[in-house]
Amino acid sequence: MTTSITLPSACDFHLHLRQGDMMRMVTPKVEEGGVSLAYIMPNLQPPIKNTEQALAYKSELEALAPNVTFYMTLYLSPELTVEEVRKASKAGIAGVKSYPRGVTTNSDNGIENYEIYYPIFEAMEKEGLVLNLHGEIPSDAQKDICVMNAEERFLPELKKIATAFPNLKIVLEHATSKAAIDMVKSLGDNVGCSITVHHLQLIVDDWAGQAHHFCKPVAKFPHDRDAIRDAVKSGHPRFFLGTDSAPHPIATKEGPRSNAGVFTTPLVLPYLCKIFEEIECLDKLENFACHFGRNFYGLSQKAGFVDNKVTLVKEANVAVPQHYEISTTNADLGVVVPFYANKDIGWKIVSNFV
Amino acid sequence: MTTSITLPSACDFHLHLRQGDMMRMVTPKVEEGGVSLAYIMPNLQPPIKNTEQALAYKSELEALAPNVTFYMTLYLSPELTVEEVRKASKAGIAGVKSYPRGVTTNSDNGIENYEIYYPIFEAMEKEGLVLNLHGEIPSDAQKDICVMNAEERFLPELKKIATAFPNLKIVLEHATSKAAIDMVKSLGDNVGCSITVHHLQLIVDDWAGQAHHFCKPVAKFPHDRDAIRDAVKSGHPRFFLGTDSAPHPIATKEGPRSNAGVFTTPLVLPYLCKIFEEIECLDKLENFACHFGRNFYGLSQKAGFVDNKVTLVKEANVAVPQHYEISTTNADLGVVVPFYANKDIGWKIVSNFV
Repeated sequence: MTTSITLPSACDFHLHLRQGDMMRMVTPKVEEGGVSLAYIMPNLQPPIKNTEQALAYKSELEALAPNVTFYMTLYLSPELTVEEVRKASKAGIAGVKSYPRGVTTNSDNGIENYEIYYPIFEAMEKEGLVLNLHGEIPSDAQKDICVMNAEERFLPELKKIATAFPNLKIVLEHATSKAAIDMVKSLGDNVGCSITVHHLQLIVDDWAGQAHHFCKPVAKFPHDRDAIRDAVKSGHPRFFLGTDSAPHPIATKEGPRSNAGVFTTPLVLPYLCKIFEEIECLDKLENFACHFGRNFYGLSQKAGFVDNKVTLVKEANVAVPQHYEISTTNADLGVVVPFYANKDIGWKIVSNFV
Repeated sequence: MTTSITLPSACDFHLHLRQGDMMRMVTPKVEEGGVSLAYIMPNLQPPIKNTEQALAYKSELEALAPNVTFYMTLYLSPELTVEEVRKASKAGIAGVKSYPRGVTTNSDNGIENYEIYYPIFEAMEKEGLVLNLHGEIPSDAQKDICVMNAEERFLPELKKIATAFPNLKIVLEHATSKAAIDMVKSLGDNVGCSITVHHLQLIVDDWAGQAHHFCKPVAKFPHDRDAIRDAVKSGHPRFFLGTDSAPHPIATKEGPRSNAGVFTTPLVLPYLCKIFEEIECLDKLENFACHFGRNFYGLSQKAGFVDNKVTLVKEANVAVPQHYEISTTNADLGVVVPFYANKDIGWKIVSNFV
């Protein structure tokens, strides 16, 4: 039985760090979770749509987590120009993120029409920027589209873009379905796929009546979870960690309506040790969490930084905190409940970034 | 445009009225919703397993709602004997309800084995008692069974029982899937199907992150809702109203875990007018809500009671209450949030039980 693991600090290729007080609470926890390279989503309020905004946000994050290498993204919208893509690339911005709602006004009959973005994709391909796709189409009862098949229905669009731009690196974010796993496998080496901590563990039953397991895309059937786990267990190099960790104040999770998102940042590597142990592939953890994503993206630590080591040990009674206070000075801001709050996850980090 | 409807007071063939303070709050609301005949589920704590318990509960309900005719059911469990079935029948008890969890200890490889109950079913067939089936099998990830397909996976069992006992009246309760609708249609006249208010209206998207829409069986795909609506629109006589109205204190709905259940009792007919108007079959409402269920069951009002009339009118700004207080004297017991709280449902009862 494996009781201790040492691996390089991990890379999280899909992370939400928010703004203001929430950002100040969450960002230092990236390192606590054993992560030293983080790929940051642009869906702030307002969204990050240009290089200046991205660099300003990056400075804020670096001040809060000086040991972490941050890679920034822009929010895909009709405002994005070819010139801005070139500028972003020169400034070290790594990718452009597409959200389904962000393109709704440019849709054709409810199906997202990515063709209006082809000049942008061409520029990204030339500049080496990565296209990050939230792979769902909006629910539409008339077409039998709902949260359970919104990802599967998106996949033809992924295939179309990947075929039209064979040298554009594309990541299907937070895959949740067997259909998505199969599609990514079937496509070329320009297509990767991020997998969250929680989607390795949850199915639809787990968010039915459990607010803190509700996220988008929703967790699906057992056979979908099996396919996600199998992709990881097989050691396929185009499937890698992107947690989609998304903190929300408890008041916006527990109530008549619940925001979508699961918070995993403070304990990324302990959660993964628990899960990989349960699905019997601890030997695949290092590649999944530390190497495959960086290899796909071709990214490395920031100048002057080298990869350090994290050591975890298996231990009885490693309880996940009940919650994290958003502010130590203003209790009114509430708390964030992490994934598996109060549960024993059986692994903890004993030395970090050594 | 129809702006006024007069129909007989309705029959609710699947109702939870609880115990104690909750019972005292909910039971008088049966009449408020335009319902005069109610078929009561036995899942109390402890469950109603014999005739004495059922009759005692019936007396409590009658004292709270003297204008309503109550039909009682027993909870199917290994304790139920053929003698008790005969006794129940003589006492006017109308049916026996099977819950999936109630048979878990008598399961064979996780599939419910109803054959141990065949002597009971035979006695029920002879005595004219109805078998009410909660048609789901327990989730089992290894068999890819989850809340989204638990009903469909149960259907072969329904077919097996219906075929083995062609003269036993069986009701598949609260159908939520096209597969269930198709199965009931394909079976003989001994098989009926209750349909709730909320399953006529909800799909999986509606309970994703919305605690007050979470119920079991869960609402499913748009094509499943279409099939339920089509059964009603077609005027098929074996599909009838059973609300499964299930009140829960708000504290057990809004929180990290949410109890399953939607509360519709106080406004059953107004909700139905809204929905039947939207799906353009107001002409089918009376049979669905007043006649088809009674015809299937062969039940009538209690001695000395005749069917009275309910009149509803279409009106702007008919808001559903935000909540109902469980007790007028003890605020600590909290409130129950009804279906479509605070929303305009556009119809109200203007004369009731006239």
